[in-house]
Amino acid sequence: MIHFTCDYCEGAHPEILRRLSETNYEQMAGYGEDPYCTSAKEKIRLAIQCPSAEVYFLVGGTQTNATVIDAMLPHYAGAISVDSGHIAVHEAGAIEFCGHKVITLPAQDGKLMAEALAEYLMRFYADPTWQHVAQPGMVYISYPTEWGTIYSKQELTALYAQCRKYGLPLFIDGARLGYGLAAAHDLTFVELAQLCDVFSIGGTKVGALCGEAVVFPRGNAPKNFFSIVKQHGALLAKGRLLGIQFDTLFTDNLYFRISEGAVKRAMRLREIFAAKGSPFFNDSPTNQQFPILSQEQITLLKENVAFEVWEERPDHTFLTRFATSWATPDEHLEQLEAFLG
Amino acid sequence: MIHFTCDYCEGAHPEILRRLSETNYEQMAGYGEDPYCTSAKEKIRLAIQCPSAEVYFLVGGTQTNATVIDAMLPHYAGAISVDSGHIAVHEAGAIEFCGHKVITLPAQDGKLMAEALAEYLMRFYADPTWQHVAQPGMVYISYPTEWGTIYSKQELTALYAQCRKYGLPLFIDGARLGYGLAAAHDLTFVELAQLCDVFSIGGTKVGALCGEAVVFPRGNAPKNFFSIVKQHGALLAKGRLLGIQFDTLFTDNLYFRISEGAVKRAMRLREIFAAKGSPFFNDSPTNQQFPILSQEQITLLKENVAFEVWEERPDHTFLTRFATSWATPDEHLEQLEAFLG
Amino acid sequence: MIHFTCDYCEGAHPEILRRLSETNYEQMAGYGEDPYCTSAKEKIRLAIQCPSAEVYFLVGGTQTNATVIDAMLPHYAGAISVDSGHIAVHEAGAIEFCGHKVITLPAQDGKLMAEALAEYLMRFYADPTWQHVAQPGMVYISYPTEWGTIYSKQELTALYAQCRKYGLPLFIDGARLGYGLAAAHDLTFVELAQLCDVFSIGGTKVGALCGEAVVFPRGNAPKNFFSIVKQHGALLAKGRLLGIQFDTLFTDNLYFRISEGAVKRAMRLREIFAAKGSPFFNDSPTNQQFPILSQEQITLLKENVAFEVWEERPDHTFLTRFATSWATPDEHLEQLEAFLG
Amino acid sequence: MIHFTCDYCEGAHPEILRRLSETNYEQMAGYGEDPYCTSAKEKIRLAIQCPSAEVYFLVGGTQTNATVIDAMLPHYAGAISVDSGHIAVHEAGAIEFCGHKVITLPAQDGKLMAEALAEYLMRFYADPTWQHVAQPGMVYISYPTEWGTIYSKQELTALYAQCRKYGLPLFIDGARLGYGLAAAHDLTFVELAQLCDVFSIGGTKVGALCGEAVVFPRGNAPKNFFSIVKQHGALLAKGRLLGIQFDTLFTDNLYFRISEGAVKRAMRLREIFAAKGSPFFNDSPTNQQFPILSQEQITLLKENVAFEVWEERPDHTFLTRFATSWATPDEHLEQLEAFLG
Repeated sequence: MIHFTCDYCEGAHPEILRRLSETNYEQMAGYGEDPYCTSAKEKIRLAIQCPSAEVYFLVGGTQTNATVIDAMLPHYAGAISVDSGHIAVHEAGAIEFCGHKVITLPAQDGKLMAEALAEYLMRFYADPTWQHVAQPGMVYISYPTEWGTIYSKQELTALYAQCRKYGLPLFIDGARLGYGLAAAHDLTFVELAQLCDVFSIGGTKVGALCGEAVVFPRGNAPKNFFSIVKQHGALLAKGRLLGIQFDTLFTDNLYFRISEGAVKRAMRLREIFAAKGSPFFNDSPTNQQFPILSQEQITLLKENVAFEVWEERPDHTFLTRFATSWATPDEHLEQLEAFLG
Repeated sequence: MIHFTCDYCEGAHPEILRRLSETNYEQMAGYGEDPYCTSAKEKIRLAIQCPSAEVYFLVGGTQTNATVIDAMLPHYAGAISVDSGHIAVHEAGAIEFCGHKVITLPAQDGKLMAEALAEYLMRFYADPTWQHVAQPGMVYISYPTEWGTIYSKQELTALYAQCRKYGLPLFIDGARLGYGLAAAHDLTFVELAQLCDVFSIGGTKVGALCGEAVVFPRGNAPKNFFSIVKQHGALLAKGRLLGIQFDTLFTDNLYFRISEGAVKRAMRLREIFAAKGSPFFNDSPTNQQFPILSQEQITLLKENVAFEVWEERPDHTFLTRFATSWATPDEHLEQLEAFLG
Repeated sequence: MIHFTCDYCEGAHPEILRRLSETNYEQMAGYGEDPYCTSAKEKIRLAIQCPSAEVYFLVGGTQTNATVIDAMLPHYAGAISVDSGHIAVHEAGAIEFCGHKVITLPAQDGKLMAEALAEYLMRFYADPTWQHVAQPGMVYISYPTEWGTIYSKQELTALYAQCRKYGLPLFIDGARLGYGLAAAHDLTFVELAQLCDVFSIGGTKVGALCGEAVVFPRGNAPKNFFSIVKQHGALLAKGRLLGIQFDTLFTDNLYFRISEGAVKRAMRLREIFAAKGSPFFNDSPTNQQFPILSQEQITLLKENVAFEVWEERPDHTFLTRFATSWATPDEHLEQLEAFLG
Repeated sequence: MIHFTCDYCEGAHPEILRRLSETNYEQMAGYGEDPYCTSAKEKIRLAIQCPSAEVYFLVGGTQTNATVIDAMLPHYAGAISVDSGHIAVHEAGAIEFCGHKVITLPAQDGKLMAEALAEYLMRFYADPTWQHVAQPGMVYISYPTEWGTIYSKQELTALYAQCRKYGLPLFIDGARLGYGLAAAHDLTFVELAQLCDVFSIGGTKVGALCGEAVVFPRGNAPKNFFSIVKQHGALLAKGRLLGIQFDTLFTDNLYFRISEGAVKRAMRLREIFAAKGSPFFNDSPTNQQFPILSQEQITLLKENVAFEVWEERPDHTFLTRFATSWATPDEHLEQLEAFLG
């Protein structure tokens, strides 16, 4: 069986395992006070050209979203997200558990467009009873989106302008950040860091065993964020596990090399399906692809290839998701092509 | 510099790193659905002779305590703990963040005694206004305690009898469980599992990179505990990281071999201090030792040996903590002895 | 200026004020332990023919919804509501503040239809990742709805059947319960109590100064509901204020006499607008009416009549709300008619 | 039976009932937007000579404490209180329900002394692991205390100086504020408002049916406090009920006249017990008195006089509480004296 189910089917990039072994007997402080965390933070600051950026390492994605959102929001306010946003759907109510409403707006190609945000905010404050309604306190987007799409520089700039107009911090969930930036034509890592108030750099889906870096690019972390992380159960005792991994990922550009490889393989996968005449749900330029398969194709593949079936469509075709990762070997793509007949 | 600051100064037991490398390219499902999680759970069930036990793998200690307590408590109730309990002091308000009061009772040698619990409960329900007071909903203890001490079988039996009398589930925080059981004269792992409603098996402090197993020994996990774990941000995407580690720890008794070695070295450390005439705060039989040092001794050690100073005492001596771990080499003990002069 | 803005523009029904004065110097216990609370509860039990019903008196509507929902839900679950539901829109995030998602479904004429609920639930559990999604834990409806409409007996029966099929308690928010039952052709108070698991009887909008009764019709109040009420800040020290008011409202059928009068006046108001050719947003049979007015009509009225303008419509007409109450005098209707020209 | 059980055994001061009746048919806006709320707020501003004070009217005491504390605290922080504080004991975990720890310090005569606060804060920040501990975010006291005692001007000044030194807002719970100020020799209402950041003025226990005013004396209400009140279920639809009551209480000094009368009667009650040789638990100068009674005295009284027995003492005497109120008639005191024999 070959797996395209997700981008976290394998362990870690071998370079990470090598560094974990190499440093295993070094004694060091816990809770992120070790030299590898320090070094990894510095490398991230350099990569985004933000010398005053504050960087924290957390463990998982839902945890990161809940902790950052709860820390950034006034406690009576909610986070705006598109209705297909990860926090709106796939986090088991973790945001609400922290006391906050997820305020959902319609998406366009998975993205929150500046116009949709502007219209919602205008209508919200035009309602004389707005103080009786859960208030918007920040904006959440993911890059790439749940549908693999990415914001252009212009789209992100326009969105962030709306956010600033209303004093709403913008949080970019970068669980798959590398794949997005590897696919981007007109947006750099440095620019992304300028166009938001906080973002995460996903490790889990880009070659690490676990770990998400949270970056406040302009020294703008909420006061006592360390304690907030601890309170949310997101502080790792052996912080070295995160420090060493991120230090490795940001050495010699490994994070982006991993991402570029996966995106290249995703484009190859796309060609394979296109060549078989399969339409796609959208034009995702990243490591997640959404071919629409027939029942016959599903049958052809299912004994040898693992992938996700997201929805049966009215015409009895199936919306599927295939993901590549740092670890997808070229042979898997060849086998996939062969199985499709 | 040699470190006795804590039991998580090093990486992971080498056998764990070996297994992580060995399995690295195996593709498997996430979120604990992989074969290593399954195997690790089965090994834990066997070790406690509880075929119906339900086992979950979480990442960190504070997270585990908060998730288990929030899941076990009626939402209006609090958890009883001794005033020195980890949840009462060192979790940055994580239990209160989940909406629950930590109801503190005085400790005896770090432990919650059945008598103290009985007296509190009797007085609580004798107060005609008890419905206006935060109600006790469960009992939390740690084994070993924050002070390295352990409950005898008789003490634990008596405590659990009180818990059952009032219908309060008993949760044993086993962040250092191995060290406690390695030191116990009259309590086995099987018995401990019988004398509580839920317990954790700490990995982080006993040779793992991270990870705590939560065990409901009689198939008594709260409904939808999986979703609760997710909601608390405690579900790891690459569940294999936890599965492989616990599978390794529970293969060939590694978890207890690690613990026994550390306890043996702690006893040796105790002898070293005793030979220098240092008194101890208590008779901890586990891997944490609390010698009381003079200012001179502190000065002698501090450039070469890292350890924790917990308190200056009225007589200007210092209560200190030294911890051994699976990784403490015998030479560190010899060096410590030499530095003490 | 005459007011149709809402049904809480005046103080209390004079009979309530009379009883408050009459009993003012009687000394009695607090927190609902007084004889008037006892008597009021008994009258409510009689009215619904549920001798084992448990009745609690809370102060306000949002408070009642938040307390009941938080008490009924497993803490990881959410409450299902139509997207126009009061808890979804007008409670400033009070449900989320308690940690719960409001799961919104589309409404039909303001109502949650059994079919919409069934479809959502079928799809929810068909999704293999459902444990990663905020789970439905109960169903919330209001009677009448935010749009003044009411469920027929058949609709409510079908909805409750779905709830029971999935083990979801049904909560009926009866902030305006009296007006709904006064308008109902085929649903009695006794039947309503049989077709849900908990409901509230709104006092504030039906002649009281404040107060909502919460009724668990079959002795099915959550354990320690008293403490939950207290914890939510919803327990009134001078419980007599609520007891006396509800005792009065349920003496000689006052609650329903008040409601019938208001509904009758709302029908008269409807006729007045209909006679002027105004269309209506819907066929609300209760005390809230939603005429669609032209800009000219708005201008005619606005200096002498207060009412709510809810929305400007694409054709530049206005969706408005007019509410009658126990206190609306016939002259106000006559004046309204006159002002309309 | 005559009642000294508490200060909320009766309804409302007759002047309040009169004003409620008088204004009953006036139509007005809800949610505190009525002219009586406006007028009451202005009268309170005048009474404390704080023209920029922001005043809100809430319904009950626990609700007020939870709402104010949750609004003032960073969400990761706790509120400091003496261990006998109302929020620490008698609010069913309402503060923890909002996510915050109640950090308890020992009391002296029911009061939090500046020295005890200073020592705690010094030790807290001296602990190098303080970021792992629930942080202090504000200070809560009540005036008078649970034990009827009051802070001198010097004590309050010293306490507030410590609060400001550490940037901790001081909240004075004034559920019985009137009785405290009526008993004070050296502290005026104006001064009290200067010596804290927020305080409440209890209505329920000082002649109102319900209602607590929350005062931010220097225009320092947290942003969107209105929405926070709503979110906590503390916003009354018929805000007039609170506005009219507070307007009445702050007309012609009624609030303080009521309080002075009750304190005078409490002093008379004290004399009655003293004349019988009863010792007192403390020298409470306010409307709550704590005589220590023998078993014989309890027996003599219990059929005719209601009061609270708080504790049986080691010498088999009983610590009791007697409270007077605005409504306590002189005859009740005479009867009490007679019953004591």
